[in-house]
Amino acid sequence: MDERFWHTAARRVVFDQPPWVRLELHEVHLPDGRVIPDWAWVETPDFVNVAVQDEHGDFLCFRQTKYAISGWSLATIGGYLHSGETPLQAAQRELLEELGCVAPIWIALGSYAVDGNRGAGRGHFWLAREARTVQAPNADDLEPQELVRLSREEVRRALDEGAFKLLPWAACMALALLRT
Amino acid sequence: MDERFWHTAARRVVFDQPPWVRLELHEVHLPDGRVIPDWAWVETPDFVNVAVQDEHGDFLCFRQTKYAISGWSLATIGGYLHSGETPLQAAQRELLEELGCVAPIWIALGSYAVDGNRGAGRGHFWLAREARTVQAPNADDLEPQELVRLSREEVRRALDEGAFKLLPWAACMALALLRT
Repeated sequence: MDERFWHTAARRVVFDQPPWVRLELHEVHLPDGRVIPDWAWVETPDFVNVAVQDEHGDFLCFRQTKYAISGWSLATIGGYLHSGETPLQAAQRELLEELGCVAPIWIALGSYAVDGNRGAGRGHFWLAREARTVQAPNADDLEPQELVRLSREEVRRALDEGAFKLLPWAACMALALLRT
Repeated sequence: MDERFWHTAARRVVFDQPPWVRLELHEVHLPDGRVIPDWAWVETPDFVNVAVQDEHGDFLCFRQTKYAISGWSLATIGGYLHSGETPLQAAQRELLEELGCVAPIWIALGSYAVDGNRGAGRGHFWLAREARTVQAPNADDLEPQELVRLSREEVRRALDEGAFKLLPWAACMALALLRT
């Protein structure tokens, strides 16, 4: 235990809907001796998001909706990790399921805690380059998705306009543009 | 009600720790007629993050820790919105409190839902340019913060290396680099 960091002394579960959401209360000890007896902590599954470029350098995105956003949004492919998967395996599975593609080049864009205070899972971001279609898509997502092909400049403008409405989508695409 | 989107038919609170975290279960009606009776939804406050450039174009960041991350991280300034504040007012307050600075140029980098399925608040991101010091910092944050001054190229390399470990910090800085 490093005394400069917060220390979790105890945790109790107050709500559990496995494997999707678990709410815990943590007894947290601060470096200055203070104790927070009921720090709320949210456990949700880790997920991947993938910025996908085809062989011409265009980006393959979706137009779709999500429960937490209003109206339509541009979106990346992505989803929760399955049990036992590495983030890269999950990213490659999602690319195949959602777009029917494989890609020879995978660039890691980082792994990030979603909420610095509450947890809420980790997002693992990838850039897949030179993606090519090998089969029909076969996604089981609850929301309809429409394929959208965008140039690098169109992605940059879409980010400027806030057209990627979800934080992980915007982060993944912005990080990808800094690598391309 | 647009029939292409999910519709919240009812909501009940299963945990509440105001104003920080509220867990709700929503009865959600899907466009195809399916009903999800207990969709978990997390309410947390909206927050701001600000990428700050000084008059020389260098970025002012922090080195700090957070409960959800391991070890130290590079960080942006930021925090929760106070009651009645607009996102820009909160961003300007945080710049003054955490860095003792004001800035004449504020560029909106977008507002994003954090978790597409669960909610978890909205992040509002800003780029503040030509920031200058007008008073001593006076932050009330629980975690210690050390000021770090980085060139644009150093920020880009830090993003490549995953040195901004929290999703809103990395997203804010990546979006800022695309504008500078």
